[in-house]
Amino acid sequence: MSEPIETSFHAPRLASGAPQPEARHAPPPRYNFIGGHNDPAIIPGDALAEAAARVIRRQAPSLAMYHLGQGRLGYPPLREFVARKLAARGVTGLSADDIMITSGSGQSIDLVNQLFVGPGDTVLIEEFSYSGAIVRARSAGARVIGMPLDSGGLRIDALERCLADLASRGVTPKYIYTIPTVQNPTGSILPLDRRRALIALSHRYGVPIFEDECYADLTVAPDAPPALHALAPRQIIHIGSFSKSLAPALRLGYATADWSVLGRMSSLKGDGGTGALDQMVAAEFLGERFEAHVGRLRTALRAKLDTMIDSLEREFGASIEVWRPEGGIFVWMRLAGDTDVRSLLAPAAAAGLVFNAGPDWACDPESAKSWLRLCFALPDERTIRDGVATFAQVCFEQTGSPRRGDNRDRAET
Amino acid sequence: MSEPIETSFHAPRLASGAPQPEARHAPPPRYNFIGGHNDPAIIPGDALAEAAARVIRRQAPSLAMYHLGQGRLGYPPLREFVARKLAARGVTGLSADDIMITSGSGQSIDLVNQLFVGPGDTVLIEEFSYSGAIVRARSAGARVIGMPLDSGGLRIDALERCLADLASRGVTPKYIYTIPTVQNPTGSILPLDRRRALIALSHRYGVPIFEDECYADLTVAPDAPPALHALAPRQIIHIGSFSKSLAPALRLGYATADWSVLGRMSSLKGDGGTGALDQMVAAEFLGERFEAHVGRLRTALRAKLDTMIDSLEREFGASIEVWRPEGGIFVWMRLAGDTDVRSLLAPAAAAGLVFNAGPDWACDPESAKSWLRLCFALPDERTIRDGVATFAQVCFEQTGSPRRGDNRDRAET
Repeated sequence: MSEPIETSFHAPRLASGAPQPEARHAPPPRYNFIGGHNDPAIIPGDALAEAAARVIRRQAPSLAMYHLGQGRLGYPPLREFVARKLAARGVTGLSADDIMITSGSGQSIDLVNQLFVGPGDTVLIEEFSYSGAIVRARSAGARVIGMPLDSGGLRIDALERCLADLASRGVTPKYIYTIPTVQNPTGSILPLDRRRALIALSHRYGVPIFEDECYADLTVAPDAPPALHALAPRQIIHIGSFSKSLAPALRLGYATADWSVLGRMSSLKGDGGTGALDQMVAAEFLGERFEAHVGRLRTALRAKLDTMIDSLEREFGASIEVWRPEGGIFVWMRLAGDTDVRSLLAPAAAAGLVFNAGPDWACDPESAKSWLRLCFALPDERTIRDGVATFAQVCFEQTGSPRRGDNRDRAET
Repeated sequence: MSEPIETSFHAPRLASGAPQPEARHAPPPRYNFIGGHNDPAIIPGDALAEAAARVIRRQAPSLAMYHLGQGRLGYPPLREFVARKLAARGVTGLSADDIMITSGSGQSIDLVNQLFVGPGDTVLIEEFSYSGAIVRARSAGARVIGMPLDSGGLRIDALERCLADLASRGVTPKYIYTIPTVQNPTGSILPLDRRRALIALSHRYGVPIFEDECYADLTVAPDAPPALHALAPRQIIHIGSFSKSLAPALRLGYATADWSVLGRMSSLKGDGGTGALDQMVAAEFLGERFEAHVGRLRTALRAKLDTMIDSLEREFGASIEVWRPEGGIFVWMRLAGDTDVRSLLAPAAAAGLVFNAGPDWACDPESAKSWLRLCFALPDERTIRDGVATFAQVCFEQTGSPRRGDNRDRAET
C-alpha cells in the first residue's frame, strides 16, 4: 500500500521528523506475551478501594494545590514508604527527602538523560537491556555501547576492558546503566562480588552507575544481594517502580541519589507533579500491605514461570536455548539455527500472538536477531500453555523447527 | 553568598546547561497568590472517595495492564465525558476516540511543540499569556512573537498586520496560541466576531490555531461564545484541563484535534499512560456531578473575586489599574508609575506574600514590568483581604505608593 496523501490543514506546519499518526487502538491479542503487564488476578481491588476511600476522605483539601502543596518530590507518605522499602534492599539512612516520586521509572530515565547526556556522549548499557533505556539514551543523542552479559549478569572483565579502551581514547561514559537484580531481559541477579567489582570500576573511571531495580521485588529466591546503592550511595543513581510490584496503570516510579543529582532531576521535572491519586492510594495501600501483597505476587509469578518453562520444554524441546530467570515476569530465549525472529512477528500476530523481538532489547540489534522475550505475568496458565503451543506451530511453519512437540510430530496447518 | 563548590561524584559528567539543584521544599507562604491552585473548601472529598471506591472495585483487574489495556488515548469513560463536555462548548460530533487524555494540559503543550516546532521556527502567543506556554515554546527553540491584547482579548487588526508582515518575509508561524475564553492572565473572553475573524486569518495564512480552554468552565457569566474548535474543527488544536474545574493535584488534561495531529501527539506520548486512578476517579465523579460541582465552584470563585477587587480598591484606590476578569482565578493589574514589580518580590516574600510578576507572563518581559497577577482561588476571603493589605503596605514601603489605603494614611512599619 502506498503512503496516504497528507491532506491535513496542519501537515505543512509539522516539524521535520514528526511521526506518522498512531494506528487506532485495537484490543490486546489473545496471546499477549509483551510488555510489563501484571497478573490481573493479583490486583487487590477491595483493599485498594478501601485505601482510596480512606485517604481521599482524609486528604481531600490538599488536592486543591499543585503537588498537594508538598513540593516537587512527591507525596511524603509514599516517599517515606520507599525509604523503608529501600532499607530492605540494604539502603539505610534515607529519609523521605532523599526520594523523588516520578511518573513511572521511564520519567526517571528521561530526567537522568536530560541531566547527563548531550549529543555524541557515550553511555554503557548491558548488551541486552530494557528497550526503553536504549531508546531513550539514543533519543538524548547518546552513543550506546553494549556491555557483555553472562548468566551472572554484567561481565566485569569485559566492562573493565571497555572502560580502559574508552579511557585510552579520552572518552568517559556519562553512566553505566545496569539492571543488576533480575536483569531485563535475561533475568539474572548480579552476585555480590561482581557488585563490588562494578562499583570499584565506577569509582576508578569516574563513571556514575545508573541502577534500575524495577524487578527487584520479584526475585524467586528471597535473598538477593543488596542494591548497588547500598554499597556506594555517592556513586549510584537508583531508580525503581511500582509497575511490577503493584500495577503498571498506576504511573509510579521513584529515584534516589545524592542531592547534587536528585535536586537537579527535581528542577527538571516540570510536569506539575505525578498523579496525586495514584500516589496517595499506593502509599495508603503499600504502607500496610506491601509485604503480604508481594508475597502473593511472587507465588503466582513462580507458578506462571514454571508453566512457561514446562510449556517451552514440551513444545520446543532442545531446539531452543532458554535462560531461566531468577525472578521477574519474562523469559529470554533463543530460537534454533539462524532464525531472524523479526520474520516471525507477522505470522505470530496473524495467529493472535505477540512477543518482544530480541533486536528491540539489544544495544546491537543484529546480535539478538534469534532471541526473543516472552512475558508471562498477564496471561493465565492455560493461555500460557496454548500460546506457547501456538508459537511453536508458527515457528515450525516458518522455519521447519521445532519439528516435534508435545510428544508428536507437527504438521502444517 | 558565593556559588557552592561542587564536590559531587557526578558533577564532572553533567551535560552542559544542567540546572542547579532545586532548593528543598518550604511550606507555602501565608499569602499565596501564585499558581493555579484551587479552592480547598470546594474539593468534594466524600464524593471523590465514594467514586474512587466504586470504580476501583469495578475496574481493578484492568490496572494490571499498561494503559488499562485500552490504548494510549486514555481511560475511555473519561474521554467520553470530555466529548460530552465539549458539546456544551459547541463542539459537536466528537466521540471518545477524538479525545486524548494527557498528564495535565502542559503535556499537551509539550507534545504540540514537539510536533510542530523546530529551532528558529516562529510561533504567535498573546502578548501576555500563560508562562508555561511561553517557556515551553522557547524551550522547543521557537521565536515567540507577542500579539497585542485589549479588554476583548486578541486584537484582530494587530494580528492581521503581524501575519501580513511575516508573510512578506516568507515566514509562516507554526501556530497561534490563544486562550480565548478567560484569557490568562487578563481574564478576557474573546467575542464571537473576533473568533470568526481569527479563524479567517488562520485559514488565509495557513496557520493552525492552538486553543487553550483551561479556564473556560469558570466564566462569571454563563453564556461564553463557543470554543474556536466548534467553529473550525479542522484548523484548531484544542486543549483543556481538569486542574481548574476539579483539582490540580490530579494531573488531567485533554486534547482534541484532527487525527492527523492527535494521532501524532499520541505517537509521541511515550510516558506509559496518564495516572490511572486520577483518570478513573475523575471520570466516575465528573460523569455524575460535573455540573453541580462547577456551579458551586463558580459561586465560590465569584465571591473571592469580589473580595479581591474590593480589597484592591480599598487598599490601592486609584493608584493601580485592575483588569476585572470575566472568570477564572486571577486578577491582572498594573502598579502606579514606573514600578518594576520584580523589585517587590523579595520584600513581599519577607512579608509572607508571593505573587506572579508580570514579566513572567509576557512574551516581552519588559512590556509587563509594572504588571502582576494575583490568584485568588486558594486563599480564603480573610486571607485575601489581609494579603492585599500586606501587599499594599509592601508597595508603599518600596515605592511610596499607595500612600492612602482603607481610609487612612499609611505609615512606614
